[in-house]
Amino acid sequence: MTEAARNIQHTVHTEDAIIVPRKRGVKTIEVDEELMQDIRELVHDRATPILKNILTDLHEADIGEIINHLEHEDRLYVFDLLDVPTGSVVLLELDSTIREQLLDALPSEKITAYVDRLASDDAADLVAELQPHVAEKVLRAMPTEDSADVKNLMRYAEDTAGGIMGTELVAVKMGNTLKQAIGEVRAAAKENMVIDTVYVIDDKGVLVGSLPLQTLVLHSPNRRVYKVMDADVKSIRTDVDQEEAAAMFRKYDLVSLPVVDTEGCLVGRITIDDIVDVIEEEHSEDVARLVGSDAEELERRSPYQIAILRLPWVLTTLAIEFLAGVVIHHFDETLSRVILLASFMPIISAISGNTGLQSAAIIVRAMSTGHVTLDRWWTPLARQVQTTLIIGSVCGIVLGMVGSIWQGKWEFGLVVGFSMFISVNISGIVGTTTPMISKKLGFDPALTAGPFETAFQDVVGISIFLSLATSLLHWIA
Amino acid sequence: MTEAARNIQHTVHTEDAIIVPRKRGVKTIEVDEELMQDIRELVHDRATPILKNILTDLHEADIGEIINHLEHEDRLYVFDLLDVPTGSVVLLELDSTIREQLLDALPSEKITAYVDRLASDDAADLVAELQPHVAEKVLRAMPTEDSADVKNLMRYAEDTAGGIMGTELVAVKMGNTLKQAIGEVRAAAKENMVIDTVYVIDDKGVLVGSLPLQTLVLHSPNRRVYKVMDADVKSIRTDVDQEEAAAMFRKYDLVSLPVVDTEGCLVGRITIDDIVDVIEEEHSEDVARLVGSDAEELERRSPYQIAILRLPWVLTTLAIEFLAGVVIHHFDETLSRVILLASFMPIISAISGNTGLQSAAIIVRAMSTGHVTLDRWWTPLARQVQTTLIIGSVCGIVLGMVGSIWQGKWEFGLVVGFSMFISVNISGIVGTTTPMISKKLGFDPALTAGPFETAFQDVVGISIFLSLATSLLHWIA
Repeated sequence: MTEAARNIQHTVHTEDAIIVPRKRGVKTIEVDEELMQDIRELVHDRATPILKNILTDLHEADIGEIINHLEHEDRLYVFDLLDVPTGSVVLLELDSTIREQLLDALPSEKITAYVDRLASDDAADLVAELQPHVAEKVLRAMPTEDSADVKNLMRYAEDTAGGIMGTELVAVKMGNTLKQAIGEVRAAAKENMVIDTVYVIDDKGVLVGSLPLQTLVLHSPNRRVYKVMDADVKSIRTDVDQEEAAAMFRKYDLVSLPVVDTEGCLVGRITIDDIVDVIEEEHSEDVARLVGSDAEELERRSPYQIAILRLPWVLTTLAIEFLAGVVIHHFDETLSRVILLASFMPIISAISGNTGLQSAAIIVRAMSTGHVTLDRWWTPLARQVQTTLIIGSVCGIVLGMVGSIWQGKWEFGLVVGFSMFISVNISGIVGTTTPMISKKLGFDPALTAGPFETAFQDVVGISIFLSLATSLLHWIA
Repeated sequence: MTEAARNIQHTVHTEDAIIVPRKRGVKTIEVDEELMQDIRELVHDRATPILKNILTDLHEADIGEIINHLEHEDRLYVFDLLDVPTGSVVLLELDSTIREQLLDALPSEKITAYVDRLASDDAADLVAELQPHVAEKVLRAMPTEDSADVKNLMRYAEDTAGGIMGTELVAVKMGNTLKQAIGEVRAAAKENMVIDTVYVIDDKGVLVGSLPLQTLVLHSPNRRVYKVMDADVKSIRTDVDQEEAAAMFRKYDLVSLPVVDTEGCLVGRITIDDIVDVIEEEHSEDVARLVGSDAEELERRSPYQIAILRLPWVLTTLAIEFLAGVVIHHFDETLSRVILLASFMPIISAISGNTGLQSAAIIVRAMSTGHVTLDRWWTPLARQVQTTLIIGSVCGIVLGMVGSIWQGKWEFGLVVGFSMFISVNISGIVGTTTPMISKKLGFDPALTAGPFETAFQDVVGISIFLSLATSLLHWIA
């Protein structure tokens, strides 16, 4: 046994009860740098039996993490050590570009086996990532019923309720007994479905109620479904945006949500784990946009692709900043007479740019959490203005005092201090209103709250400052 | 009946099945601006019976939203229309300052009634918000067992697993039968607990397994718990940070997670709805910090308080920017000889500041989603450097060309273009490494990735630019 293998034997959590049957579920070891190092050595030595042993004890999410961090040539080797049920889940945990590379290297029969094990929504997402000719092969090799499900799901736009729903669900008729419902849950469990709620439909398939598992446990098995079901069941239509689905989960503390078509017929369900992913996506998008990039940057794309993603933002910002340059050029004479003004330019533009960005980011966030709604736009604006009045005053006074001392003229201090005050306040107003106007016009508010806003602030701040300085030039020179 | 009341009668969803018993659950109407307007009118008319009728059909989250949006004097009136079970849940849905005001206006006996209806974790959070003397009164008036639970939960730090867990759970011994477990679930349901998993403990109370409700439904009631339980149950210790709990839910797609003390004894459970709140909090914190503020700003605090929250950030940024001013002052002579340099200063500092912020934000986000870990710091750094090499080159070339044409000297273009290139690349490196170093040192990476970073970039960018210009002055002047 190698040193690495011995370490791992030690790390493995020992079961204290041999009477306990081993079940598929959440496993007990997590990946730390030490375990990763050991696995790298074992992979290097191609120590297949020991590795298989270790992988059996790991959760699929952890195996995914390990494969993500291996060198390219070792990934296929480790992935091939996994059985099909584990491998199919591990595939979902991989970074998207790594998954693509792995799928490219696998024969279509193997891919079919993995896809066939997955929940319909995950299967559809995976097939959508395949090369078209491979996808076709895989779909043809699958059982007709499953491939129909997958093809059906692939019709929905990616970012709608239909695009994130799965078709694995248990539905019963109103007249059924609870015993029959329990029978359906049992049948579903045999197919590895995780069910938390049984849905109730009428003869046309229209969703009319729900039965949480708890209800099944609590009542006599002979009772009829309609007697104990919850008739006030929330649902969402296939074509509604996924962010709205996320908002419903958050607001109503849901664990799953049935999805219906335009006729109200039950066609799928969304579960909370998919929603957690949607929330994450949404946030990555907000953060990336605020700084002038795109959430896709987080996926492992090539640096070249990232540059292409960012360049339109950077070049637009550059174009706006050229305007600031033109403004300064316009005041060349003022600047040459009082060269110290140049020292105060970046200070004023940085602070007012920052204040604007603060207001913008807070409004964007508040709109996405629902703290601020458009029909009450004046409340946040009034609050931001009051806040920037205070911040502007403090910064104006500090800068004014520094300016007075530095140039040795209180008039100079007055000009820089007052410019600071005005431009911080304008920033606050523009920063608050721009995201709201963007949203009203149907753009992503984070899109206009970021670098463009800051660049625009530079132009405004510098214009105010140098105009003021020019008109009071005889005082300060 | 007033016009408003008639509108609402129309909006109310009609049940199509009178046989269906009315159950507490997710309700069917949502709040839009029209409904809000109608309610405002009814509140103004003090139309108590109609309002009560409408409120019965609304979800607690929606009632909370309505009260949030009412005028201060109307809030207590509407809240008083609610029965205790509804009111207690609505309290949780209110914005924190509004809740505080409402609680201040309520007598302590009423507060006790509400608190007593809540889940232990929510009760503890609510009591923690009360004035100390009111909290004491409320705790004394509660049943001893409940108040002990609440007091116990209040001991844990707010942002730990202990701080977000509830004590409502069902635990059985390994030797029990499934029938006994189902009996426990029934008893819990009578106390309005929502249970998705029964936990299994040994004689000392140590957590040894779990029984998802599905397992209870699937097996014969006479089987022993240890035969069918899942022994690989994940748990978390009370003192672990809530963000780590959130990471476990995300990674392992959990719906609930048992919490144990240092001895491994089961003391509570965390549910996914609390985790969704933690994820939201975490994101608000990240966004706010990136722009130099605090997530608390999202709560309805007074503009004065927000200014106090932001001022330390703004003033620190101001102090760093003074450094930039000093640097410029140092190069006064260069500037007076080639005044056009002043026009290019804000362009270079804005673009490199923005590039640095992009790199920083992406790294912060990637660290919080787990895409980037500290022990593999070189990968993201190498990628960011490659990206900024491309962005720096493109911006450098564009700026260089503009500079050459504007000043009419290619040497001038070379200086501005090359300065842009260098300073964008330094920004990328500093922007990537600063958050990683902060995290290594135990600070919040978002803390140093924001305005300080951008301000620092101003100092560096301007220093490089003006030094270069000065050393090549005989060329460009």
